[in-house]
Amino acid sequence: MAFETKRLTVPAMEAILYKKYDVLDKGFVCCLDYMGGDKAIVDAARVSYASGTKHVSTDEGLINYLQRCGHSSPAEMCEIKFAIKLPIFVARQWLRHRTSSVNEVSARYSILDDDYYLPSTQDVNVQSKDNKQGRGTPLNDEDASNVVRAIAQHSADSHLIYKELLSETNVHPPVARELARTVLPVNYYTTIVWKIDLHNLFHFLKLRMDPHAQLEIRKYAEVIAGIVQRWVPMAYAAFKQYKLDAVTLSPLALNVIKRMSRGEDVKREDVNMSASEWKELMKLIE
Amino acid sequence: MAFETKRLTVPAMEAILYKKYDVLDKGFVCCLDYMGGDKAIVDAARVSYASGTKHVSTDEGLINYLQRCGHSSPAEMCEIKFAIKLPIFVARQWLRHRTSSVNEVSARYSILDDDYYLPSTQDVNVQSKDNKQGRGTPLNDEDASNVVRAIAQHSADSHLIYKELLSETNVHPPVARELARTVLPVNYYTTIVWKIDLHNLFHFLKLRMDPHAQLEIRKYAEVIAGIVQRWVPMAYAAFKQYKLDAVTLSPLALNVIKRMSRGEDVKREDVNMSASEWKELMKLIE
Amino acid sequence: MAFETKRLTVPAMEAILYKKYDVLDKGFVCCLDYMGGDKAIVDAARVSYASGTKHVSTDEGLINYLQRCGHSSPAEMCEIKFAIKLPIFVARQWLRHRTSSVNEVSARYSILDDDYYLPSTQDVNVQSKDNKQGRGTPLNDEDASNVVRAIAQHSADSHLIYKELLSETNVHPPVARELARTVLPVNYYTTIVWKIDLHNLFHFLKLRMDPHAQLEIRKYAEVIAGIVQRWVPMAYAAFKQYKLDAVTLSPLALNVIKRMSRGEDVKREDVNMSASEWKELMKLIE
Amino acid sequence: MAFETKRLTVPAMEAILYKKYDVLDKGFVCCLDYMGGDKAIVDAARVSYASGTKHVSTDEGLINYLQRCGHSSPAEMCEIKFAIKLPIFVARQWLRHRTSSVNEVSARYSILDDDYYLPSTQDVNVQSKDNKQGRGTPLNDEDASNVVRAIAQHSADSHLIYKELLSETNVHPPVARELARTVLPVNYYTTIVWKIDLHNLFHFLKLRMDPHAQLEIRKYAEVIAGIVQRWVPMAYAAFKQYKLDAVTLSPLALNVIKRMSRGEDVKREDVNMSASEWKELMKLIE
Repeated sequence: MAFETKRLTVPAMEAILYKKYDVLDKGFVCCLDYMGGDKAIVDAARVSYASGTKHVSTDEGLINYLQRCGHSSPAEMCEIKFAIKLPIFVARQWLRHRTSSVNEVSARYSILDDDYYLPSTQDVNVQSKDNKQGRGTPLNDEDASNVVRAIAQHSADSHLIYKELLSETNVHPPVARELARTVLPVNYYTTIVWKIDLHNLFHFLKLRMDPHAQLEIRKYAEVIAGIVQRWVPMAYAAFKQYKLDAVTLSPLALNVIKRMSRGEDVKREDVNMSASEWKELMKLIE
Repeated sequence: MAFETKRLTVPAMEAILYKKYDVLDKGFVCCLDYMGGDKAIVDAARVSYASGTKHVSTDEGLINYLQRCGHSSPAEMCEIKFAIKLPIFVARQWLRHRTSSVNEVSARYSILDDDYYLPSTQDVNVQSKDNKQGRGTPLNDEDASNVVRAIAQHSADSHLIYKELLSETNVHPPVARELARTVLPVNYYTTIVWKIDLHNLFHFLKLRMDPHAQLEIRKYAEVIAGIVQRWVPMAYAAFKQYKLDAVTLSPLALNVIKRMSRGEDVKREDVNMSASEWKELMKLIE
Repeated sequence: MAFETKRLTVPAMEAILYKKYDVLDKGFVCCLDYMGGDKAIVDAARVSYASGTKHVSTDEGLINYLQRCGHSSPAEMCEIKFAIKLPIFVARQWLRHRTSSVNEVSARYSILDDDYYLPSTQDVNVQSKDNKQGRGTPLNDEDASNVVRAIAQHSADSHLIYKELLSETNVHPPVARELARTVLPVNYYTTIVWKIDLHNLFHFLKLRMDPHAQLEIRKYAEVIAGIVQRWVPMAYAAFKQYKLDAVTLSPLALNVIKRMSRGEDVKREDVNMSASEWKELMKLIE
Repeated sequence: MAFETKRLTVPAMEAILYKKYDVLDKGFVCCLDYMGGDKAIVDAARVSYASGTKHVSTDEGLINYLQRCGHSSPAEMCEIKFAIKLPIFVARQWLRHRTSSVNEVSARYSILDDDYYLPSTQDVNVQSKDNKQGRGTPLNDEDASNVVRAIAQHSADSHLIYKELLSETNVHPPVARELARTVLPVNYYTTIVWKIDLHNLFHFLKLRMDPHAQLEIRKYAEVIAGIVQRWVPMAYAAFKQYKLDAVTLSPLALNVIKRMSRGEDVKREDVNMSASEWKELMKLIE
C-alpha cells in the first residue's frame, strides 16, 4: 500500500520497509518506519551554523565535516524504528543503550513460543585464553554438534516445564505466567519494537560491530548497518571513515609513531606503555 | 511536491506540513516532519501487552487505557520535528526539556537580524502580588503603550550597538561575533529545529500550557497542541482527559471530599492542610 | 571506618551504609553511597525560586510544595547508589528505568554461581483471570510445594548443564562462557551496582510499588522505599502524600464525584465512562 | 563544620569544598558536594568485569584500560555538584549538555542584580577570517578599551531600563518581572546549581576545553578540570591521555602516516582528502 507524502522520502528505504531480514537461526530485523535522511542532517546543520557552513560547498563535504568534528546534534534529527526478534541474552546487551525507546513482548501477559537460539556448529568456540570475555578457536564439527545438541535438549526441556507449569495438571492448577516464565533460559527469543535517533544508533553500531562484542549481537548490528547505509549513504560513509574504522591515538602513542617515522628504534620500555596498548599500536602501523 | 511512501501517513498533517503558524509578534511554529500516528501507538502497545490488550476492543479504548494507567512507552514511538522562531528568554525555558534534540542558530557564526519581541499592549501587566512568578492585572492602554515603547527603543538601540561592534569604525576594527552578540537582550529572536517524541511532548505541553507558565511560552504550547491534535487525535484526547485537565488528589484531599459528600462540615484546621492546598481543593469542588 | 567530611551527612544513613537487606530467598539491597538529603533539595529550590520561596517559611512546607506542584528538578540534586542482587527477570524490569547508571556482573567474563530464585510456597499463585498480567489466588500448600520443587529441579539441572559446557569433558573442550550461559534460566541471580537521582527513584518507586507490579520487584521496591525514608524523611513523606498514594481524576471523574456529593444518582451509562474506569472510581469514594 | 561519615571521602576535595573559584570578571565555580572517587570507579568496574579485571593488577592500570577502551559506565558512578555564576550566553552553551541536573535562578521570581560580564581588554578580538565561529587577533589596547566601554555603557543602561520597568513611575505602575527582564542582555550573570556524573563531565570538558569553544566557557571548563583532577587524579590522567589530548585518525589519515613513515612523498591530491583535514593531519605529525 502506498500513500502520498510531502515528507522527506528515501526510495531505497521504501524498497525494504517491513521486510524481515533473518538473523541467527530464528531472529530477524525489520524496519518499520524512518524519519529524515542525509538531507535532514544537512538542513539541521545549516540552521545551526548558517553562514558558517557556506564554505562547505557540498552536502557530502558538510556531513563529513560534522562527523569528523564531532558535531552530533544534526544526526539526532533522523529517527528509525525496527521490529527485532532476538534472544533474551542479546536483548539484555541491547537495552543497555538507554537513549532509545522500546516496547517488548511481556511474558507476564503472553505465553512465549518454543523459540530458542541454537548456535550453528561453526559458531561454537572454546573459551578464549587471552580474552576473558571472548571466544577462542571453534570446536571441531563433532564436538560442536554435541554441544548444540545438549543446548537444544535443555532448551526444549525448559519449554516443557514452562508449559507444564501453565497447565492444569494432576499436581497443581495453572500457575501465573509471570512466575512460570522464570524457568526459561536466556537463549529464548523475545521481540522488541525499538526506536532510536541516528546519532545514538551510530554509537550502538560502533560498540556492537566491534570485534569485542559478542558474535550474536554483532550479527544484528551488521544487518542494521546495512539498512542504515541504504537510509543515509553519506552519513554512513562519514561514520565509517571518522568513527567506525577510525583509530584514536594517545599523545604517547602519537609520539611513538612520530619517532619511528624518523627512523628511531623505539622500545616499549622507553615510553612506559602498557603491554596491551603497545601491542595494539604495533598492529596499527604494521 | 509529493512522494510515494509505505510509511504510516496522516493526511491532516500532510495538509499543514511546512506551514508557518504565527506566534507572538514575529515568531512561528512550523512542523517539518513527523513519524507515526495513533496507529503506531496502538501497534507498539499490542506488541508489549499482546494478548493482554485483546480485551480492549478498540484502538481508542486502548489509547485511553495507556494514558490512564501511565503506560508511556508506546507514545514514545511517535516523533515530530518543528522549526520554531522564538525569543531567547522563551528558548531558555524551552530547552530545559532535555529529552529532545535541538539545533539552534549560532550567533557565533551568524549575524542576528533586528528581530526582537514586543508584547502587545494587552499583554503588559503589573507584577502579581500573590503569585511571585506571575503577571497581575493588565496596565491601562496608555501606560502599556509607554512600556512597549520603552522596550522597543532599548531593543533597537541594542541592535545599533551590536552592529556598531561588528563594523569597522573609527574607534575599532570589527569585533568577533561571539563577543558582539553579548549586548543583545533576551527578547531577541532565535530559531531552533526541535525534535521530540510524543510522550515527552505531552509532558512539555502539560507544563507549558499550565496557567503558571509564562504567557509567551504558553502561546507556543497552544499552537503545538493544535498540531498534535491533528496528528494523533485519539492520543491527544486521552492526554487531555487523563493528564492535561486531570487533577491529582492527595489521600488527605480525597478524604476531605468524601467527608464533605457525606454532608460533614470539614474545616481546614481539622485536617492540617496548607492554606494554598486548601484553596485549590475548594476551587476544584465548588 | 569513619572519615571526616564537610559534606551534607545524614546520620540515619550512616547507620545502615553497606548493610545488606535480604530480599527474596537469596537477593539483597545494600546502600553503597548517597549524596545530599532533604536540605540539598531545599537549597537547590531556594536558588531557583529565590525570593519566591520566602513565603514558604519551613523546609517541610517547601518540600511539600515542590512535590505537590511537580517541581522535580530540586529532587534531582540528591543521588544514591546501591549494590543489588536480584533475579535476571527482575533485573530486566529494573533496567527499563533508563535515567540511571548501572554496572552489572557480566556472564561473558565470570562464571555464575548456582544461585537461582525459588518463590516461597505462599507466593505461588494461579494465573489471574481478570488481570492478564497478574497473579490470582495462591495455590494450596501441597500444590505450591510441587511447583517449587519442579522449578528447583529444573534450575539445578540448568546449572549442571552450564558447568558441563564450561568443562573439559569426553565429548568436548570447554565452551566459551558467553555461549554456555545461554542455558541459564531467567530466575538466576545477577548483581548490579545502580545509581539514580531521587526524582527518578521516586518515579521508580511509584511504578514498582504499585500493586500491578510483579510481586518480586515490589519486594525490592519496598526495601528501597524504607531506605529512602531514612535518607530524606521530608521528601519521602511529601512523595507519599502527593504522588505514591495520590489519585488522579479525569474531569469526567471529578464531575461524577461533584454530582454525587450533591446527592444526584449518577449512572455509568449517563457519563460514558469505561467499565474499568468506573469500577476504579467507585472504589476510590466508597 | 565537619561530620563523620563512612562514605568514600577524598581529602583533597574536602579542602576546597564550598570555596569560590573566580572566573571571568564576576563569575565563580564552587563545588558543593561530590560522591565517589577513583576507588568508586574501580569498584564498579570490578563488579562488571569481575575475574576479567584480575589481570589488570593495579587500580591505575584498570582506570587507564577503561578510558582507553571506552568503558564509560564505571565513571558514571561518580557524581559532582557545583554552584556556578556565569553570563547568560555561557549558560546557554552550558545547558546544551542534557545529561545533568540544573536549578537556575529564575528572573520571573527574582530581581536580577546589576551584574554583567565585561571582557578584559586583552580578550577583545577581531572576527576571525578563516574560522567563522572564532576570534582573530586581539585589538590594540586603546581600541579594546573603547569596545569594553561601549559594552559597559549599554549594559548599565539596560539595567536602568529594567529597574525603571519594575518601579512605580509617573508613566506606569510596576511591570511584571518576567516581562521586565526581557530587556537584559545575554551578558548578564545568572547562577545555577549543576550536578553531573563524571563520564558526562569528561564529555563536557572534552568539548568545552577545546580551542574551538568560546573563550569564556573555556575559562570555566579549565577551573572545573582543575577540581576534577583533585577529585579523581587517576581518572583525570587517563581522560587526559586517552580522550582530551588524544587524536582520532581516519583509515585514510592513518594510511598517509604509514606511507610517509616509509619515506614516501604523499600528496593531498593523491589521497583525495579535504584541505582542512589535510592541514590538521600535517599539523599532527610535524
